[in-house]
Amino acid sequence: MPKLSPLAPAHIPAPGPLAGVRLAATASGIRYSGRTDLCLIELAPGTTVAGVLTRSLTASAPVDWCRASLKRGRARAIVVNSGNSNAFTGKLGREAVKKTVDAACHALGAQRHEVYVASTGVIGEPLPAEKIAAALPALRGRLSADGWSDAARAIMTTDTFPKLATRPVEIDGVPVTLTGMAKGSGMIAPDMATMLAFAFTDAAIPAPVLRQLLTRANDRSFNAITVDGDTSTSDTLLLCATGRAKHKKVRAANDAHLRAFRKALDELLIDLAHQVVRDGEGASKFVSITVTGAASAGAARRIGLAVANSPLVKTAIAGEDANWGRIVMAVGKAGEKADRDKLAIRIGGVHVAEGGLRVPDYDEAPVAAHMKGQEIAIEVDVGVGRGRATVWTCDLTHGYIEINADYRS
Amino acid sequence: MPKLSPLAPAHIPAPGPLAGVRLAATASGIRYSGRTDLCLIELAPGTTVAGVLTRSLTASAPVDWCRASLKRGRARAIVVNSGNSNAFTGKLGREAVKKTVDAACHALGAQRHEVYVASTGVIGEPLPAEKIAAALPALRGRLSADGWSDAARAIMTTDTFPKLATRPVEIDGVPVTLTGMAKGSGMIAPDMATMLAFAFTDAAIPAPVLRQLLTRANDRSFNAITVDGDTSTSDTLLLCATGRAKHKKVRAANDAHLRAFRKALDELLIDLAHQVVRDGEGASKFVSITVTGAASAGAARRIGLAVANSPLVKTAIAGEDANWGRIVMAVGKAGEKADRDKLAIRIGGVHVAEGGLRVPDYDEAPVAAHMKGQEIAIEVDVGVGRGRATVWTCDLTHGYIEINADYRS
Repeated sequence: MPKLSPLAPAHIPAPGPLAGVRLAATASGIRYSGRTDLCLIELAPGTTVAGVLTRSLTASAPVDWCRASLKRGRARAIVVNSGNSNAFTGKLGREAVKKTVDAACHALGAQRHEVYVASTGVIGEPLPAEKIAAALPALRGRLSADGWSDAARAIMTTDTFPKLATRPVEIDGVPVTLTGMAKGSGMIAPDMATMLAFAFTDAAIPAPVLRQLLTRANDRSFNAITVDGDTSTSDTLLLCATGRAKHKKVRAANDAHLRAFRKALDELLIDLAHQVVRDGEGASKFVSITVTGAASAGAARRIGLAVANSPLVKTAIAGEDANWGRIVMAVGKAGEKADRDKLAIRIGGVHVAEGGLRVPDYDEAPVAAHMKGQEIAIEVDVGVGRGRATVWTCDLTHGYIEINADYRS
Repeated sequence: MPKLSPLAPAHIPAPGPLAGVRLAATASGIRYSGRTDLCLIELAPGTTVAGVLTRSLTASAPVDWCRASLKRGRARAIVVNSGNSNAFTGKLGREAVKKTVDAACHALGAQRHEVYVASTGVIGEPLPAEKIAAALPALRGRLSADGWSDAARAIMTTDTFPKLATRPVEIDGVPVTLTGMAKGSGMIAPDMATMLAFAFTDAAIPAPVLRQLLTRANDRSFNAITVDGDTSTSDTLLLCATGRAKHKKVRAANDAHLRAFRKALDELLIDLAHQVVRDGEGASKFVSITVTGAASAGAARRIGLAVANSPLVKTAIAGEDANWGRIVMAVGKAGEKADRDKLAIRIGGVHVAEGGLRVPDYDEAPVAAHMKGQEIAIEVDVGVGRGRATVWTCDLTHGYIEINADYRS
């Protein structure tokens, strides 16, 4: 087990039961020894599902499977393993998915398009699906509404803590719950979603509406984080709605009575996305980058990610150096409209540059003090429009090199 | 002075005189102490010039100046300083350029549009151009046809060795020379050129032809290297032709009698570009990535750069780990057409993956042995077309973190 990230939350949430969801985890022996690596999530009949998946052109076999099944919008089970991503495994990979799905169908009495699979770990090694198939019947017998923490631990790879979040909310006065889990912690530059994240609600939401809600929330959360700019072949985010709560019918994503739910979903996914960043490989600082004045929200996010992915910005932060010149450089390379001579930068709330040059009376002392903290805030206004976005990242440290010059992922 | 790069060439070339070019360097005290930081290059009357400049939207004041002057295509002088990039310096930056240009005009009797300036170093600090102006008259008195090595040293920042290359070649039987210098060594992901590079020939080539030749050669050299994926605000590559050689008239870039010259220019710029990579911050391995089977040469280069810029690929190489799964990931995130199920990868000439999965009889031993060397060769065929390109990079090591968590660039 690697050392706990210094940015780990002081308290790891322990979500309570969510009607219609039961979970169990086990050590199936796929790759790791002495830890769990397989989890089964059972969903009540009638559960709807929406998902976003990696846009990588070398996506894994499980991603291909989920993409096809998501068109149907129904889910009864999710099977997740760590230790092997079943990516770049060709025909063997597709067979491993089929074997896993068939075993889950048999154990739970589900149909094949209702079973979702996700795998994370080494790329290019055949996945021993027979170990998963052999473990599923026993796992089924141990399903529990309290299995959240076990499940979140089973999907970890180089993660140093399990990532869980939960939010109570109401739909038209009826209490519903949102609960999710995620894993990081390298190869994180989600192009559609993060490595793996699963969110659940007992609300009753038709799949097309769920899709719209998820896309919007994902753009503000997982699509706004980066650890190393490397996009995984396995990025999978699923949102399942078990429909067990008895609230007023949901017809559209913009229903007025969904307002609080939308906000809670955003918060839940941002919470999980932040946890992924806080467990970024080698991370010692959590960095928020807010870009304003861009041509559009999309442009603002791309500029923010250019700053967040810059090795020179990330190493400066690791070195606690308020090197704002590197922020200027990263804005310049982002390929989005920006007015160099209107550019303004604040670090830790302190104006550093304005109107295209350093502020005349710049005092580095408060900025240097801010850089010594664990939470770094960077604000950039690029002076061309009204687009804004916030993205989150971590610094680039010796720890990242140590982890990745050794780990075969 | 940082430790010499382990990838430094055994022999640093000492170019001889090139008719029409004289150089001198001095310590003007811009930022560094105990080393030279300013060089003056004088070009004979009638010299033509072409250039490629950073596409950064936060380009430096000297880059703006060069962009405007290049339209005229004439050069009499280049003034280069290290220690301060005169980037993000607003009106002060433009005034510093003007002061430098005026001083050079005065010293050499040149016109303003014939004086080129380039600055490299810290971003956002006002450039003390009065120090440059004060140093120029004495520099003029020390101009020498043998000043190459001094000039190449004066433009270094975190470079650990001066970068020089020279090639003799003939145009229609008349001997001409190509000589160039460059500097690296971080913030290297040239979008049009590298940080700073200057090439010279005594051939007589009209500016429009020079432009075409340079663009083509630049695409195969500086635009095909990356150290850290960060594009500088100062990238400048100039090619000057003094016209002192008396050869058959050049009319077009595709003139048959320019064939050897074109090849020599390619070689010269590739040589300099390789030296930049070999001096990449913290580099311990020199990596060639050849992509074939892409939709176009441009697509091949973009896929190659996605692999070359991937922190996970670069750290695996630093760790001497033949982690080809990370190459698959990087190809997938490049955003260019690739057929996952036809992907083939060779490392050190050994087939690792073919037809979208690991070769059946894969023996890691020869690949592991290759990874222990200083020169790493990666070949990827993406199986969709005939486009090919080679790009070059270095690994990502603790050295990069050390240099960049401290150096205020």
